[in-house]
Amino acid sequence: MAAFAYARTIHFPDTDAAGVVFFARYLFICHEAYEEALAAAGIPLATFFADTGLVIPIAKSEATYLRPLLCGDRLGVEVAPTRLTADSFALDFVLWKLPAAGAAAPKRAAVARTEHVCIDSRTRERRPLPPALAAWVDAATAA
Amino acid sequence: MAAFAYARTIHFPDTDAAGVVFFARYLFICHEAYEEALAAAGIPLATFFADTGLVIPIAKSEATYLRPLLCGDRLGVEVAPTRLTADSFALDFVLWKLPAAGAAAPKRAAVARTEHVCIDSRTRERRPLPPALAAWVDAATAA
Amino acid sequence: MAAFAYARTIHFPDTDAAGVVFFARYLFICHEAYEEALAAAGIPLATFFADTGLVIPIAKSEATYLRPLLCGDRLGVEVAPTRLTADSFALDFVLWKLPAAGAAAPKRAAVARTEHVCIDSRTRERRPLPPALAAWVDAATAA
Amino acid sequence: MAAFAYARTIHFPDTDAAGVVFFARYLFICHEAYEEALAAAGIPLATFFADTGLVIPIAKSEATYLRPLLCGDRLGVEVAPTRLTADSFALDFVLWKLPAAGAAAPKRAAVARTEHVCIDSRTRERRPLPPALAAWVDAATAA
Repeated sequence: MAAFAYARTIHFPDTDAAGVVFFARYLFICHEAYEEALAAAGIPLATFFADTGLVIPIAKSEATYLRPLLCGDRLGVEVAPTRLTADSFALDFVLWKLPAAGAAAPKRAAVARTEHVCIDSRTRERRPLPPALAAWVDAATAA
Repeated sequence: MAAFAYARTIHFPDTDAAGVVFFARYLFICHEAYEEALAAAGIPLATFFADTGLVIPIAKSEATYLRPLLCGDRLGVEVAPTRLTADSFALDFVLWKLPAAGAAAPKRAAVARTEHVCIDSRTRERRPLPPALAAWVDAATAA
Repeated sequence: MAAFAYARTIHFPDTDAAGVVFFARYLFICHEAYEEALAAAGIPLATFFADTGLVIPIAKSEATYLRPLLCGDRLGVEVAPTRLTADSFALDFVLWKLPAAGAAAPKRAAVARTEHVCIDSRTRERRPLPPALAAWVDAATAA
Repeated sequence: MAAFAYARTIHFPDTDAAGVVFFARYLFICHEAYEEALAAAGIPLATFFADTGLVIPIAKSEATYLRPLLCGDRLGVEVAPTRLTADSFALDFVLWKLPAAGAAAPKRAAVARTEHVCIDSRTRERRPLPPALAAWVDAATAA
C-alpha cells in the first residue's frame, strides 16, 4: 500500500460538549498526517506552507464520519496521494481507531479526501506542482 | 429562499501561516450559522448539542473552497435545511464574501453540505428527529 | 470608562467534553475583542496582523476564570488598553456573562490581561508603536 | 527533576497569519502535556475530563512567550505539578524549542503556569482532589 501512517492521541481540546471530537476537527488531524508525510519525504514544513510565490490551497474536502472519538483514544491515520493533473492532486485518508492492548482489531473512525491545486499566489493562475511534491505524489500514485 | 443569513467577521486566529482561513475552519463557521438558525427557530443551544439521550452527529461533510478569506473579511452565510429521511437531514451552506462599502457585489467564498443523523446516544440506533428540529427542517424544505 | 464593548455568542465548537468553554479559548475571545476595537479605531485588520516589517507579538498573558460558559451563552467583552513603554502596551479584558431577557445583572465570567511588544520582525529589536496604534492606546490610557 | 517530558511537532493549523503559533495555542499544547502526564500516571483520560460529579477546572493561567514557533518546529514540554491546598494544585510548564540534528542546545520558547481547583460539578463547592490525582501531584511535589 502507498499509504503513510501517522499516530495521534485525541486530546481534551479536540472534543466538544457532546463529549466527542467535533466533525471538522477530523480534517485538522488529516492535515497533520499530510504534514508528517511531507516531512518524511524530506519536504521542509517551515517553508512549504508559507507563501513563497506558489501556494497549494485545498479546493475541495469531503469526509464520512463512522465512529465517535473520545479524549484519550488512539488514532492511526493513513494518507495516500493520487495525481490528478499537472497542477493538482488528491489525498485519501483513513482514520483508524486503534484498540487498547489486548482488544480487537482497529476500526475505521472516518474516511476523508482533499483536493489540492498549485497556483501562483499573486495571479491565482494554476502552476505545475513543485518537483519535490510531484515526486512524492507520483511515487505513491505508481505504487 | 429558505435560507438563513448569518454574518461573521474573520478573526486573526481563524487564519493560518498562509495568511488565509484554514480550509477546515470554514466548516466551523458553517456550524456557527447552523447554531444561529436553530436559535432563531427557538431551539435552545445549551441543551440541543448536549447528550440528552438523543444526539444528532454529522455523518458526512463536503465543501468546495472558491476564494481565500483574510483577517478582517466580512462573511455572510446562508444555511438551507433539507429533509432526507425520518431520522436525517442535510444542510446546504453558501459563504459569501461581503464587499467593503461602495465595492462590487458579494462573491461566493465557499459552498458546503453536511448530513446529520439522529441517533440514540447509547445504542447508536437511528431515531426520528425531535419535533422542534423536524419542524424547522420541514418548514425550510417546503419553502 | 475607556473600555470597548464586544458581544459574542458561545458556539458549540468553543466547548469541550466537560460541556464548557476550554480555558485557553477565553483568550481567543479576548483577541477577537482586541481586533474589533482596532477596527473601530480605523486600523485595518488585513494588514495589522501580517508581517509588514513590524510585528506586535504578545509577550505575556494571564487570566482568572470565574464562571463556566456554555454553548448559547451571550458574552460582553470590555477591552481597555494601557501604555507601558514607548514600544509596549497592555490590554485588560473583562468578560461578562450577559443575562437572558428579564434575568439578573451581568456577572463576570473572567478577567484577563495581555502584554504586547512592538518589534522589528527580522532583528527582533524593539521599535516604537506605529502611530495609529499609539493614538488608540494613548487615548484610552488618558481617558 | 519532577517534570514530565512531552514532545510535539508544530503543525500548520497551529499557526496564524503572522506565520507563528498564536499565543493562546501554547496553552493548548501545555494541556496536551498535562494529559500525557496523567496517562503516564495511569489516570484514564476518557473519564478524567468528563463530568463525573467532580470536575477540576482551571482557575488561573499565566504565560510568558519567549520565542516564536513555526510550522515544523519540534517542541519538548516539561510539566511539574505542585500541591497548593487540599482541593487545588498548580502546574508549571516549560516549552523547549528543540534543535535540528547537529544544532545548538534547546531554547525556552515559553513558560506557563495553570492553577486547578477540584469542585462538585453541581454545587460548585470545593472538594478534595481524587486519590489518583492527589498521588500524582504529591509524588511530584515531594520529588
